[in-house]
Amino acid sequence: MDSGVAAGTAGVSPTVAEPDARPAMDDAANRRAGAVLTVNVGAIAANWRGLRDAGRVANRQVDCAAVLKADAYGTGARIVGPRLAAEGCRQFFVAHIEEGIALRSAMPEHPICVLNGLLPGTEDDFVAHGLTPALNHLGQLSAWRAAAQRHNRPLDAVIHVDTGMHRLGFSPEEAQVLANERGRLRGLRLALIMSHLVASEEQGNPINGEQLQRFRAFLRTMPGAPTSLANSSGIFLGPDYHFDLLRPGAALYGINPLPGQPNPMLPVVTLHARILQTRRIDALQTVGYGGAWRSARPSRVATIALGYADGYFRILINRTHVHLAGHRVPVIGRISMDLVTLDVTDVPEAEAQTGALVEVLGPHTSPDDLAEHARTNAYEVMTALGHRYARVYVDRPESTE
Amino acid sequence: MDSGVAAGTAGVSPTVAEPDARPAMDDAANRRAGAVLTVNVGAIAANWRGLRDAGRVANRQVDCAAVLKADAYGTGARIVGPRLAAEGCRQFFVAHIEEGIALRSAMPEHPICVLNGLLPGTEDDFVAHGLTPALNHLGQLSAWRAAAQRHNRPLDAVIHVDTGMHRLGFSPEEAQVLANERGRLRGLRLALIMSHLVASEEQGNPINGEQLQRFRAFLRTMPGAPTSLANSSGIFLGPDYHFDLLRPGAALYGINPLPGQPNPMLPVVTLHARILQTRRIDALQTVGYGGAWRSARPSRVATIALGYADGYFRILINRTHVHLAGHRVPVIGRISMDLVTLDVTDVPEAEAQTGALVEVLGPHTSPDDLAEHARTNAYEVMTALGHRYARVYVDRPESTE
Repeated sequence: MDSGVAAGTAGVSPTVAEPDARPAMDDAANRRAGAVLTVNVGAIAANWRGLRDAGRVANRQVDCAAVLKADAYGTGARIVGPRLAAEGCRQFFVAHIEEGIALRSAMPEHPICVLNGLLPGTEDDFVAHGLTPALNHLGQLSAWRAAAQRHNRPLDAVIHVDTGMHRLGFSPEEAQVLANERGRLRGLRLALIMSHLVASEEQGNPINGEQLQRFRAFLRTMPGAPTSLANSSGIFLGPDYHFDLLRPGAALYGINPLPGQPNPMLPVVTLHARILQTRRIDALQTVGYGGAWRSARPSRVATIALGYADGYFRILINRTHVHLAGHRVPVIGRISMDLVTLDVTDVPEAEAQTGALVEVLGPHTSPDDLAEHARTNAYEVMTALGHRYARVYVDRPESTE
Repeated sequence: MDSGVAAGTAGVSPTVAEPDARPAMDDAANRRAGAVLTVNVGAIAANWRGLRDAGRVANRQVDCAAVLKADAYGTGARIVGPRLAAEGCRQFFVAHIEEGIALRSAMPEHPICVLNGLLPGTEDDFVAHGLTPALNHLGQLSAWRAAAQRHNRPLDAVIHVDTGMHRLGFSPEEAQVLANERGRLRGLRLALIMSHLVASEEQGNPINGEQLQRFRAFLRTMPGAPTSLANSSGIFLGPDYHFDLLRPGAALYGINPLPGQPNPMLPVVTLHARILQTRRIDALQTVGYGGAWRSARPSRVATIALGYADGYFRILINRTHVHLAGHRVPVIGRISMDLVTLDVTDVPEAEAQTGALVEVLGPHTSPDDLAEHARTNAYEVMTALGHRYARVYVDRPESTE
């Protein structure tokens, strides 16, 4: 980190935002784009460094992985992965085997672990693509061990033990069987023992400590392997939770790992949508489907080129705004599939013109902000980011754009 | 239509559903899939025929287009488009120019109209790809006419006139200018005059009649061109609304165009997700993030491989269910990014096994049903359908699967 990171914290100080910083628009795809998503891979790299440094306290050298599932939270795994590898990241996690296969083609060398585990009959696919399954129960362990025997070489294994999530991972009973019968691992290289936190973003929730104790108890029965517990928010629970490997996802992409506190991460994405048309309407006219919004005064309406098919959720009706030339502009009427309408009455007419780009996500509206308007979390906002946006990748570690 | 369509209605009678009909799973992509989306293009074609036939009443021969925006409502425009062209559909609509370019590569001949209109500087892109912009104001008309002059040939034009939506389209004032100055169309071939209904799904809403009158008034000033007003629900408002071209989108894909009444359309999509793991938990244990669900009794929990990153909205917590082997199975705990947890306590253990496929969308749960659980509409459910699903296309016009 170039600035703002005190040793022993994962803090990253954002630089001052340039209001309405707009994406470069210089090729055909951008000219034709109704909306442009800009991903700052330099900010992702800076966030990764900040989190990695959080694990480098008290002479410990905790390693830091990167979670790239859901296409790197909507930002593009095949671009983000190699960028983080260049930064020094050595281990990667995805959810699905297909995600692993796609990422492998962009990253031939690095370990990629598939968290959803080993589906029956896919063992040879894992071997063929050099992927490591998270093994979630004894049946998967047996199948993976059989694959190692069939291929006549040791295969990496990640053991995922459940400490309270009750979603994936070895149950306490099966974990006990494994601890008593270490021979079940013969032929495999135990690359990692991991678990997953239930409520790491709630620093006062006692379940964090309970999971920590259960994880430690299991590890005492299985000494020697590298270990991992902390997701993004878990890193901020302190060194007790760090073990050998941090596994941040959300925080890499600028999502606040400390809800209710200032966001220590650099913002990563901006989203700008283009005005397709503006119009004047009289007072008491309605806009959009169902006539759900009615003008209280003579108004100007601008229509921009994104909608719920692009992940701009329908629930945002009457609950959010965008920014244009420094003005906060209300979203009015129902969100359409491909279009959103704005009340630009208070924006100077010269600014609210066809072709102008409005800020949907950016310095004024973070994914966490939009999530609050949509009554969800920034994870869902990010993973819903649309596939119709023109995508621009920039590499500006010190910029907030 | 082979059965069930009375002349003069757009009705399509679904055949009896086969409960839990499951997708064919015979290649590597399906073996590896956490979830499988099956799209019945035959049902889309049957729905199109039913809607087309609705326009063939009283010796009128109204044509029927297909709206393929948002990747054909999540079903795959490059597959659906050619299938409907083979069925006899001759005109297609998309939202964005990029969608038009992608569709053009699969359909070299048919007219494709881009509803979001003509962005500044994209005129030559439209010409190069043989796309027709919906012209939403005089400025776009001038730019398109200049393109025709530059290319020294007549270009097709679609005039979109606003009759109350106040979103896109010629305002009344600009429409009047156009009616008075027909020379503004010189060098263009007026392929269609269209407008869009605000509340066509509300058959008793007086705005439908108001829009109809405004559209007719405009058409009296611009005689001779083909005309179009009705979207899916608008078709069911009756022949007055049909004009020369029907423009269904939603109903093609099985979304009910008659909310509150029985759905006359064939279902098009099914979605099955695989069980990754099952576990037993004691009474009073929690499942998933935040410990948001707590077991009232000793329970069995199954975890399936889809989540909100796949469009299974977070708001569905504690509000929906899936089906497994004829059993209705509650979704429990928070929806995760890649995983959903189920209470399978009441399902025979032999059925709720790792690898089994549960019905998320299908005979028991339509997109309209899931939309009700998620407090949105089926349009958003469909356009949010995830990109990580394995996709299987079948062509069974008489099946409901």
